[in-house]
This record gives sequence, structure tokens and C-alpha cells, in this order.
Amino acid sequence: MHKLLEDLVASALLEDVGHGDVTTNSVVGPELRCRARLFAKQGGVLSGMQPFKLAFGIMQAEMAEWSSLEDGASFAKGDLVASFTGKTRAVLTAERTAMNFVQHLSGVATLTRRFVDELQGLDCRICGTRKTTPMLRLLEKAAIVHGGGATHRHTLFDGVLIKENHVMAAGGIAGAVDRARKHVHHLLRVEVEVRDLDEFGQALAAEADVVMLDNMDNETMAEAVRRAKGRRVVLEASGNASLERVRGMAETGVDFVSVGALTHSAPAIDLTLLIENS
Amino acid sequence: MHKLLEDLVASALLEDVGHGDVTTNSVVGPELRCRARLFAKQGGVLSGMQPFKLAFGIMQAEMAEWSSLEDGASFAKGDLVASFTGKTRAVLTAERTAMNFVQHLSGVATLTRRFVDELQGLDCRICGTRKTTPMLRLLEKAAIVHGGGATHRHTLFDGVLIKENHVMAAGGIAGAVDRARKHVHHLLRVEVEVRDLDEFGQALAAEADVVMLDNMDNETMAEAVRRAKGRRVVLEASGNASLERVRGMAETGVDFVSVGALTHSAPAIDLTLLIENS
Amino acid sequence: MHKLLEDLVASALLEDVGHGDVTTNSVVGPELRCRARLFAKQGGVLSGMQPFKLAFGIMQAEMAEWSSLEDGASFAKGDLVASFTGKTRAVLTAERTAMNFVQHLSGVATLTRRFVDELQGLDCRICGTRKTTPMLRLLEKAAIVHGGGATHRHTLFDGVLIKENHVMAAGGIAGAVDRARKHVHHLLRVEVEVRDLDEFGQALAAEADVVMLDNMDNETMAEAVRRAKGRRVVLEASGNASLERVRGMAETGVDFVSVGALTHSAPAIDLTLLIENS
Amino acid sequence: MHKLLEDLVASALLEDVGHGDVTTNSVVGPELRCRARLFAKQGGVLSGMQPFKLAFGIMQAEMAEWSSLEDGASFAKGDLVASFTGKTRAVLTAERTAMNFVQHLSGVATLTRRFVDELQGLDCRICGTRKTTPMLRLLEKAAIVHGGGATHRHTLFDGVLIKENHVMAAGGIAGAVDRARKHVHHLLRVEVEVRDLDEFGQALAAEADVVMLDNMDNETMAEAVRRAKGRRVVLEASGNASLERVRGMAETGVDFVSVGALTHSAPAIDLTLLIENS
Amino acid sequence: MHKLLEDLVASALLEDVGHGDVTTNSVVGPELRCRARLFAKQGGVLSGMQPFKLAFGIMQAEMAEWSSLEDGASFAKGDLVASFTGKTRAVLTAERTAMNFVQHLSGVATLTRRFVDELQGLDCRICGTRKTTPMLRLLEKAAIVHGGGATHRHTLFDGVLIKENHVMAAGGIAGAVDRARKHVHHLLRVEVEVRDLDEFGQALAAEADVVMLDNMDNETMAEAVRRAKGRRVVLEASGNASLERVRGMAETGVDFVSVGALTHSAPAIDLTLLIENS
Amino acid sequence: MHKLLEDLVASALLEDVGHGDVTTNSVVGPELRCRARLFAKQGGVLSGMQPFKLAFGIMQAEMAEWSSLEDGASFAKGDLVASFTGKTRAVLTAERTAMNFVQHLSGVATLTRRFVDELQGLDCRICGTRKTTPMLRLLEKAAIVHGGGATHRHTLFDGVLIKENHVMAAGGIAGAVDRARKHVHHLLRVEVEVRDLDEFGQALAAEADVVMLDNMDNETMAEAVRRAKGRRVVLEASGNASLERVRGMAETGVDFVSVGALTHSAPAIDLTLLIENS
Repeated sequence: MHKLLEDLVASALLEDVGHGDVTTNSVVGPELRCRARLFAKQGGVLSGMQPFKLAFGIMQAEMAEWSSLEDGASFAKGDLVASFTGKTRAVLTAERTAMNFVQHLSGVATLTRRFVDELQGLDCRICGTRKTTPMLRLLEKAAIVHGGGATHRHTLFDGVLIKENHVMAAGGIAGAVDRARKHVHHLLRVEVEVRDLDEFGQALAAEADVVMLDNMDNETMAEAVRRAKGRRVVLEASGNASLERVRGMAETGVDFVSVGALTHSAPAIDLTLLIENS
Repeated sequence: MHKLLEDLVASALLEDVGHGDVTTNSVVGPELRCRARLFAKQGGVLSGMQPFKLAFGIMQAEMAEWSSLEDGASFAKGDLVASFTGKTRAVLTAERTAMNFVQHLSGVATLTRRFVDELQGLDCRICGTRKTTPMLRLLEKAAIVHGGGATHRHTLFDGVLIKENHVMAAGGIAGAVDRARKHVHHLLRVEVEVRDLDEFGQALAAEADVVMLDNMDNETMAEAVRRAKGRRVVLEASGNASLERVRGMAETGVDFVSVGALTHSAPAIDLTLLIENS
Repeated sequence: MHKLLEDLVASALLEDVGHGDVTTNSVVGPELRCRARLFAKQGGVLSGMQPFKLAFGIMQAEMAEWSSLEDGASFAKGDLVASFTGKTRAVLTAERTAMNFVQHLSGVATLTRRFVDELQGLDCRICGTRKTTPMLRLLEKAAIVHGGGATHRHTLFDGVLIKENHVMAAGGIAGAVDRARKHVHHLLRVEVEVRDLDEFGQALAAEADVVMLDNMDNETMAEAVRRAKGRRVVLEASGNASLERVRGMAETGVDFVSVGALTHSAPAIDLTLLIENS
Repeated sequence: MHKLLEDLVASALLEDVGHGDVTTNSVVGPELRCRARLFAKQGGVLSGMQPFKLAFGIMQAEMAEWSSLEDGASFAKGDLVASFTGKTRAVLTAERTAMNFVQHLSGVATLTRRFVDELQGLDCRICGTRKTTPMLRLLEKAAIVHGGGATHRHTLFDGVLIKENHVMAAGGIAGAVDRARKHVHHLLRVEVEVRDLDEFGQALAAEADVVMLDNMDNETMAEAVRRAKGRRVVLEASGNASLERVRGMAETGVDFVSVGALTHSAPAIDLTLLIENS
Repeated sequence: MHKLLEDLVASALLEDVGHGDVTTNSVVGPELRCRARLFAKQGGVLSGMQPFKLAFGIMQAEMAEWSSLEDGASFAKGDLVASFTGKTRAVLTAERTAMNFVQHLSGVATLTRRFVDELQGLDCRICGTRKTTPMLRLLEKAAIVHGGGATHRHTLFDGVLIKENHVMAAGGIAGAVDRARKHVHHLLRVEVEVRDLDEFGQALAAEADVVMLDNMDNETMAEAVRRAKGRRVVLEASGNASLERVRGMAETGVDFVSVGALTHSAPAIDLTLLIENS
Repeated sequence: MHKLLEDLVASALLEDVGHGDVTTNSVVGPELRCRARLFAKQGGVLSGMQPFKLAFGIMQAEMAEWSSLEDGASFAKGDLVASFTGKTRAVLTAERTAMNFVQHLSGVATLTRRFVDELQGLDCRICGTRKTTPMLRLLEKAAIVHGGGATHRHTLFDGVLIKENHVMAAGGIAGAVDRARKHVHHLLRVEVEVRDLDEFGQALAAEADVVMLDNMDNETMAEAVRRAKGRRVVLEASGNASLERVRGMAETGVDFVSVGALTHSAPAIDLTLLIENS
């Protein structure tokens, strides 16, 4: 919902601006307008144009002549990413907040794209996890999609994922899957995390819809893929997938590789906003 | 304020939990209690224990037997970082949110510590910037302190920093500094960003309290330090400070090196929460 | 989340109390305590004890000696449903809000139970819809469970349900199912609404996980059940299910009958709170 | 206040939409527009057009060509109630929330109208109570007005109503009325609930402005009306007023009959939103 | 509602504390406790002890040994008003916010008391208006009561007051009163503002429950009182009532004198919080 | 931030309007428009035009033909301050809230101007304190500027001010200043409050950037000014500055006189809104 995003950006602005931008308000005349240009100082994949633009709008920059690349677009070092005119005070005050969104989210999209590119030609998709930055899940999940990845569940209630800790508390995979099926509604699939082929067998026997192969080596995963042949089960590989390892993981035949680093460790993309009086 | 932090953690939980943790609620009995242990899977510096603990509290985990390292403590791979008991459902439901806070913030503290360690023996401090994650500024600024750094201003109104864009809009350094002094209150210092020795000279002439040396090479910075000798001015070096470059920058004699990467590009620290029935 | 419920009840109290309960504050002494007893004036199934109790707590009634039936319990006319002591002012001020929750939610649970009872002996479940009262979805879904029903998806993002309008916009069932599968994450099933056996055939061909048989007569539904035999597909009957019709619908062999009336048209259960000085 | 209503509808949308309408977003193209027509599947009285329209607006449906009946209008089965065009995605996403408002509120207005119609020719009005759905009081009170009823007080502070429980706590009717008069401001009348003619006499003696005749039979009420003749006192009959009983109650000569069922037990009116590509 | 007050005080604290009390946090050790004593530097009437105490509680001062005068109590210069112990940091951080509440509200209570004292022996009461400080109405209305005054309506919906502008828009007093009676609920009285005896006559004829005599001289008011004799009408004098004028106004025989200055122009009472290490 | 102000004004309106303006809604036709003129009933300095205008806008008054003096303008008794047209209902409903803002804030601006005028010809400025009305700090600080004053710090974190209580807790001025310097960021100056020349000497020795001379007599302050000669230290006089005393205080040579009364005890300016049908 647009209102949700607007509230988030307004909160982020408030966090930065507080009682007012004392520098800009004392140094820059209230009547000035400027042209602002967003340039890339390194290559990447764009994400976050919505909060970027909203930040200036909420500060009442009276923007005009807006043009920009779209979320999901690739850009190279030196490229012009966006351009607009607006009231100088508002542009300067909103700048840092706007940049913090777009630099972080483009970082997520860019890292995702690199993982996706590693899988070229394979029938396996990269997806994210719930290891996201607090308050930014919706935007980071979108950034993964902009980078070419899939989202996985967003929350604890739009998907069932029985992890090791649940199995322990429930006393076994069979029982856990059975309980989940009985209690969750009929539009949700049930996924189980398994650590070895024995557990994998239990998951298949329990007719889990999706199985997460957690921290397995590639041979074990390949064997799991073989055992699942002919069944209507989705396989997801998980556990410290790196750019070096990911293709090997995918070549085992799994349907998804989920990568926490997409959201918890993506470095920001270096962008810069150049401003001139207009 | 504690209430502010509590609201933030509750919002982050809501973002993850939504209408309920369907897996846990269907698989785990409501009466179960567990012991939870937080272990380090890599070394680092701790930050984020407050939101970590709050997440379980807000989910009404009825925690007991809490013990943990303190924010700012170093830990090695394999170390026990925290331990507590609580209701299993609440612990499992809050787990991801709690972990997202502590892994990200420990990432910030750990990277800060590495920068700080580079400056050992020098009279120069590492400080952060406003390039923080939206909604997490307060926590990330605290993480920098836990890592041994200094905070720099938090917002646009607890410090004056006249940047290149402001100078352009004001028509010159002298005029900008003068306007700032006249309009901001008398408990704020005035900092100006300069790009070369000519601008540096103007900043000194304008009696700026702090000067940011932006993207200068080390010789230029050293020369600026010499020219500032005997004056009551604070010098801050800025611009793509890396672990490789930072000691050289500090050896020029500046008082601070500000590092955006502390908050915008720190990879998360790998921690794991192990749970057993109790 | 408990905090969510607390906020809701506080908002409901605020809606009623506003600047203060002028009657109670002027007529009842601040030091008085009372015993309050909740009695049933008609039989039913209980739901809403959480918001009921919270309402008094938020008004700082300093409750003691609490005892009550549990959500999901049946009660007969005249039964004592709950009993507690507390400060008289707070009890009187919170009374109406507390009662509005429990009477409405028990209405939902009671009507659900009546539908569920109609299906005794059949392998078919009653479930709710998204036709809930604005702001009360979570509580009404819980009331359905208290009444013995299943919840169905809670929101627009914890389940895929392609309705007639979506099919029209997408240009056909096959295309719609295909697009949904490609874009939604792998823990969600895909349900399609169909109106006749032709569309039902298309849904089966598209390998929909769940098919909603909308407004079909019982023979048509029975035929659909026959055609689905041997396939891994869940069938849900929908469309003006009444207490009179529901058993016939279920006897066709469908897995679920969804009933909007559970939440949009359940009459409140008549309960009364009797208070005496203590 | 419009802002209040807007916030309520946005919250209701958020409750339904959460992180996004996964069905619509994957199945329906973002560029499509449609024509939407709201039809009545049964007769009734309209209420809730404001939240209905707001729901689409908040989802940024870019509505055009809006036309509709007004709140308070009667409609018959098959009537076109409203019509508009808009972006298909937004229309489909907001549909259920919009419908939940208008179907429930029209249910309240329709039931009110039926009660009001029973009193034709009598100088007695139907009014609501505080037995409303949590969070919807303002809208339900408006729906009562749309149905031809009167509102009664909205909250605990825009009217004094001394009920049986207050009398018990205060130790008598005379004392309670006296205390209320002394402590509440001079723009509020004082109403007392009485259960028999003895209490009624006490209320008259205490010069209550309004007396609620609670659960009395018609003869007793008629006697109370006789005893009140010539006095400036308003009489309100209360207690399980049904469509069958209400005219008899009114014919006793009371000024108002208050009916809790208007808001706590009105079944929703069946409406349907038909959509076609445009 | 207590929650409402808690939210208000938390917002006021947030307004002052923001990202943290940098002075206290850097200068005062986190383990220190202190004894705090609130002394009066001038005489007055106390109001605001609730928000005062809440401010320290919300900052987690871990207060103990609390004792204080009660709201409504008179104090003389030098009197000890309150005393407690708590954590020094929290006490210092919350001090200004706590003091701003109690000094302002005691100002209102004190000024009210002075007006009330002027009317000793007369059967006439001082009451407030809606000319209150934005966001503080509830507290200021309570302060008026602490000072011995009456509250008048709190809002635009717990009382009907037809002012000159309404009369103009409605085209006359008779029509305005009539419309109000028909549309507002039966627990509200109707008050009309009149400027001369002619309008007063119209108000009496329209059977207004309350008449506000606005900006009349004392003789005219006395005449109005005479004309109202024997009728059930309340008379309220209004318009620049000062301490000098108020007794004369009351002696005309009106029931109330309403005084805007109580809330819009009461100077703060000088109090001081003395702190010593404990 | 504009959004912040909008939220504040909306909250203030909600505090007054609640469930609706029952008088206006029943007496004034929904289609009427009016011309509204704001007149001064006494001279003063204007502040608060932003919240004034917003109040009508938020009530959807559909304002037109707006003209007004600007914040900071002086006006005389009888002057037209603002004029606009709008929907009568909205204008009447928002009137009191709008007036409460502008009358209070103009009170602050006017009192400030009187203090400022006392210092004509002197190189000394009037500034405010944190003794502001809860929730109105931003607006009251702006009103001080409109009156010609300076703001001083806004919060506890945009300036360091070590007061007597901090010194006591820290064990001395030197230690307190030293700790502050070490822990707060490098864009903040450090101010210390001193009560006599001995403490003043300690503050100078500690190289405090600003010293507050608290409750000193004029001779002592003059002596302090002499001792500070040649040092880069700002001097601020504080303590019960009255219109009578302030020039004498300023003539001692201090840089600022801070005056709490500007915000805690400024009487409201009498303005009136005249409305006629249009």
C-alpha cells in the first residue's frame, strides 16, 4: 500500500530532520529552486526510486521535470540515474534520507543480480529470506525482485516453514507436518527444514510440499533431488550460499537457493546527488 | 528513550509476525518452555542486546535466567553470547526479529572496531555519518559507540554542516558561514566542507569551528593541518575511508575520520540461537 | 501479537470513553470496589474473553479473583460465564466496550458452531471468508476457530484466490493460474473460483491446488467431486450457504464450505454484567 | 472529521492487504482500467458510501465517472447502487474492504428503517444505543440516521445516563441524580434508568431530565407516561425491542424507543461489485 | 483514560529528549540515585501531579518514597510540594517536561481559584471555555476543577452552543434553536449566545435551556435575570471577565461566569526541583 | 516538517471536534459558504498563521481568496489580520482550534517583541528557554523568532547545558565540562550554568564555550563580562528577567538574556473571527 510506504518515508525523514534542517534553513534562501541529478559512482541495479521520490515530495519540494531509470534497470559508473528540479531547501533537507533508501536498496538489488547471473541457464531461482533489516522488509523484498530474485514468504503467516527448533519442540518431523496441515488454512503449503537424508526421507513420507535442504554438501543435495524425482515436492537449498558456491548448489537440481546475505550484508551502492541553482 | 525503542521493536515484530506465526502456533504446544542460547559463529563486537531482549519480552516470552555479554564486548567464534529461558512459542516467534537487530548492529560495531584498531596510538577518532539505515539511526549510532567510535551529529538539527551544495546555493563559503552563525542558536558549532586548500583558507578566514576535508589526498590534508596549527578549529577527514587508507588519513594529524561504510555497508555478524526444551 | 490486541481494545475504549465517563465519575466514589458477574441470557459458544478482560485492565480496574469459561466453551441460558472483582468506576466505564467485544464475537462463534454441528459425521469443514467487520478480522477469525471452524486465508497476501474478476482481467483461467504460480512465492497454493463444470475442467487442467465451486447446485458439485477423484486438489463450496443448505452442500463430497454469514451477519449473543458492591 | 474516517479506512485496508494483494499483482496487468458497478442483490437502505469510495481512493484507483445513490436512499433488488471506472488492480484490491463497510452499514440502516416504519404516524422516535461494533461507532451512528433513527449519546461523556449499577453504587436514585447535576457541566441533561413505577416516581421527584423505562411491560409504561404528563421530562423505552413489539411500546406514549439490535445484530445487506475491462 | 495521558506525556518527553539528553548522559553516572524535592517559589493551587509523576516513570526513573500534596491543594511560597527518590539520569532528563506540565497547570488552577474566591457567598460559579491550549484540554479542564471552577463543555459534541455566527448562518435565533433540538440527541441541552435583551427575549421564547449573555453590561444582565425568573433556564455571563469585574457580573444573579483567561492567559507558577545525591 | 505540523493541528482539531460539531451540523446548511475576517482586538505581533490556515484546510473548508499578514508582522487594534472564504460549516467547526493556535502564539511573539524592544541599541539578544508548553515547542520557538528573539537549543540533544544539578552529580564544574567534551559530538558547544564569580572562574578555566550567569545581580554580571574579555566565550544571563530588569541585565555586556516567561507566561492576544454569508 502506498500509504504504508509514505508513512515509512515520513518517519525516516522525521528521524533525520527533527525540529528542522538548521544548516539549510539558515544558509539557503527559501525562494531558490535547483536542478538535481543523481549519478552512479559505480555500476549496479536500481531499486528504491519510490521512497527516493517520496522523500522530496513529503518535504514539499514541488518537483518538476522528473525523469529516471526504473527500478530493476542496470546502470554503469557515471550514468545519470535520475533528474528533477525542485525547491532547493527541500531538496537539500530530504537528500540524505532519499539517498539512504536508494543506496541501500540498490545494494540489495545489485547483489541479488550477481547471484541470479551465476545461475544462468539453470532451472533454479535465487530467493531471499526473512533476514531483512527491521522496518524495511517490504522494500528489501521488492529490491530482490528488482534484482531478478524470488521473494519467499514475507512474514510468519504467509507460509509454513517448520525449522529444526519446531521439530524439536514437536517431537519429530512427521508429527510437526501433520499438526501444521491440520491447523493452517488450506491455501498454505507446508515446508520442512531437514539436515540430512534421513530427515529428508521423513519429510517426503510426511508429504511436505516443500523441503529446505539446510547446510548440506552438494552431493547430499543431489541425492535428495534424485530421491524426490516424480514427487510433487519443491526443494530449496539453504545455508551460507556465496557467489562462489551458488552455482554448484543450483546444479544439484534444487528449485531454489535462498540467500540471507541478499538483505543482511549487501553493501550500499555509491550514488551522488549533484545540485545546481536553476 | 526506552519507549521509543520499544515501539520500534514492536513495529519490527509486527512486520514479521502479522496475524500470527502460523507454523509455531500449529506445531508447538502453548505450555512449553525452552532454554535459548545465542552463540557466535564468527568473532565480533556485540551491539543490539536491548532490542534483542525486548523482542522476546514484547512477545510475552516470560523470560528468566537471563545472562549475556554487554554491548561493546568482543566475542570469538563459538562464544556463548547470551542465554535465557522462556516460553517456546514466544521465543520462536520473536527469534528472527531479535536476530535481525543483533546481527546487523553487531556488524556495525564490529566494523567500527576494526577501523578504530587501525588508529591505535594516534590522537584521531573514527566517527560515523548520517548514511544510516532508515529507522535505525539511534541504534546504529549506539553501535558505533559500542565499537569505540564517536557519533557525529545525529540529525539535521543538532549540528551545522555546510556542504558543497549549501555553499553553491549561498554563493560562497564566507557568506554561508556568516549566515549560519547568525541564525542558529549559540550552542551549535559551524562545520564547513572544503575540497581544496583554497576553500580551506576561506573556511579558516570565516572562523568555522570545524572543517571537513572532503576527498583530499593525504599530503593536502597534512598541509591543511599545518595551516590550522594554533587555531581553535577541529579537522575532520571524509571520503571513502577504507581499512587500508584510514591510518594514512589519520596520520596527517586530523582530529576525526568520518566513515559512511560503518553504517551503510557493514555485513551482518553470524550468530545462531539454539533452543532446547526445558 | 498481544500488543496489537491491546492497542485495538484501547482504541475501542477511547471511542467510547473519550474525555471521561461523566456519569460514573460524578455518581460513583473513586474508592469503591465491586464484584462483577457475567451471565448468559441465552445459550451459545464463548469468544472474546481476551478483549473483554483487557478492557477492564486498560481502565486500571485492578482486577482480582478472576475466573471464567474459556473461549470455545459452550454455555446455556443463565450460566455464569465470568466473575471478578475490581474498582467500580473502572468496571462501569469499561463495561460497554468489553461487552460489545464478547457479545459480538460469541455471536460469531455460536453461529459457526451451529454450521459445524450440521456437518457432524462428514469429512467436510466449515470455514470463514474475508467478509469480516473492518478492524476485527483477527478476532473474528479466532471466533470461527472457537466455534469449530477453519479460518481460510486472513488477508490478500497469505493465499492466492483467483476470482471471476481476476480471470476476466487475465483473459482466462489457464493464463491466470500460470501467472500466479510464476509470481507468488513457493509456499502459497493457488485457488481458482469456477462457476460451472467447464471452468472446473480448466482449473483442473491448470493444476490449481484448490478450486472454489461458486454458487453451484449440489448435483454439479457432486459431479465436480467425481471428476477430481484421484487428484491432489482441494474443493471448496461457496455461495450463500445457509444452515438449511449446508449439509447438502457438504454431502457432495467437497472438503470445505465457506460461509460469509459467520462474520457479516451473526447476531450478538445476549450477555449481562451484574455488579454488586464488595 | 474526514481525516478520522480516512485513517479508519486505511487501517481496514491494511488489515486486509498487508504486504500486498498477491493474486491481483500477479494476475492483473498494472495498466488495466475497468468499469465497476455495485448492484443490490436484495432491497435495503444505503449507508457507507463514504468509506466505500475512500477505500478505492486510498488504493490510488484513480477513479472517474463516479455516480451513486446517496446514503439514506432506498434501493430494490437488482438496482444499480454505484458505478465508477478506475485502475483494475486497485479496484480489485480494495473491493473486499469497501464492500465490508457498505454491506454492514447498509445492514444497520436497513434494519433501522424497518423499525422506523413500524412507528409511522406516532410521535415517537427510534434511537440507537452504545451497543455498537468496536471502532465503528461513528459510522454506525450515521447509518442509524440514514435509516431514519436518532442517535442517542455517542460516548460516555456527551450525556449522563445513570443506570442500575450506578444507582446501586450511589445508594439511591435521588442521590445519584443530585451528584450528577452537581458535577457535570451545564449543557448536559441527566437521564436515569428505572425498572418500575416506584423508581420512576423517585426519578420524577429528583427532576431527572430523561427517564429510561427499562424492560417494563406496556401497561406500566403507559402509566408512567400518564404520571409524567405536564412535566418537562423525556421518556425513553428500552429493553429487547423487536419489530413485533416496537409499535406497542411506542403507543404507550414514550418519546423514544432505543434498540440495541440496530447495531449489534443487523445482518449485512447483499451487494455485489461487477467489474469489466474498459 | 490513563493511557491517553501516558501517551501525551511520552510525546512531550519525546519532544524534549529526542535522540537523548546529551548533557546528562555524558556528565552523570548511570548508577547514581538522587532525592528530588519540588518547592514552591510562590503561592498557588496545585494541578498536574499526574503528568509530573508520569514523566519520571516513563523515563524509567525507578521512583521511590513518593510523597506530594494533592491536586487542588493550596501551597505557600517555600512549601515542599513533592518529594521522591529516583535514578539521577532519568530525573534530570525528565525534569523540564515534568515541570512544564505542573507549572502551567498550577497556573491555571491558581488563576481559577482567584476568580472563585471573588465570588464567595454568591450562588454563581466560575467555568472555563474552549479557549484552551492545543493538546492540553483535558488537563486544563481538570486544572479548572482543581481550582474550584466548573468545566463547561469539553468539545464541540458534548454540548450545543449556538453562537452569533451560527445564528447568522441559520437566519435567526428561533430557527437555530429549533433545528438544534431536532437534530441533536435527547441528552444534550441547547445554549444560545445573545448580545442584547431583544435577542434574549427570542432565546427565552425559543425555550433555550441555557442562555449566554455575551459582553453585556451588568444592568442589562440584571434585567435578563429578572425576565428569566420562574423559568427553567440557566444563565451564563461571558466576555472579558476580569478579577476586577467578576463579582459585579456574578451579583447580577447569573448562574455562571465563563472565563477564557483561565486557560489562555494564566501565567505559570514558579516551582523548582532541587536534587541531591542519595 | 510540514507533515509534523499537519499531524499536530489534526490532533488539536480532533481534541475539539471529536465525533462532530453537533451545533454547526444541525444549525448550518452543508452548502453554505462564508467570508471570514480575522481582526485584532488589541495590538501585537503575529505568529501561528500556518496552523491557523491548516485547521480550516484539514476540515476541508475549500478556502479561497486567502490574504493575511505574515508571521512576524506587527498589527494594531482593529487591523484586519487575515481574510478568506470557505464552507461555513468547516469554518465554524475549525474556528476555535485555529484561534487557539494563533492567539497563543501571537502572545508569545508579542511578549518577545516587547523584550527585544527594550534592548534597542545594545549588542545583546533575547532568547527563549525549554520552558515551553508541552507539544508546542516547535511553534513557540518559531513565535520567538517572529518576535525578534533567538531560539536557544530546542531539545536536550542539540546543545549541552550543564546545570547546577549536573555539576552536583558530577562533583564539580571542571569534571563535568571535561566529561561533556569527551562524550558529545564535535559539532556541539558546551555551556555551563554558574551562580557566582568563583564558579564563573572555574567555567572559564574549563574552557566552556558558553557560560550561563544564573540569578546574578548586575554588578556581578558586569564583572564576569570584564573577566571574560579577550576570550572566545559566549555569556548568557538568566533568571527572572522582567521587562523592567532586562535592559539593565543587557547593559552589563552579556551576549544573551534568556527569558522563560516568553513561552510559559505570555497572555494570549485577543483576536476575533467575523463571519458573514457569501
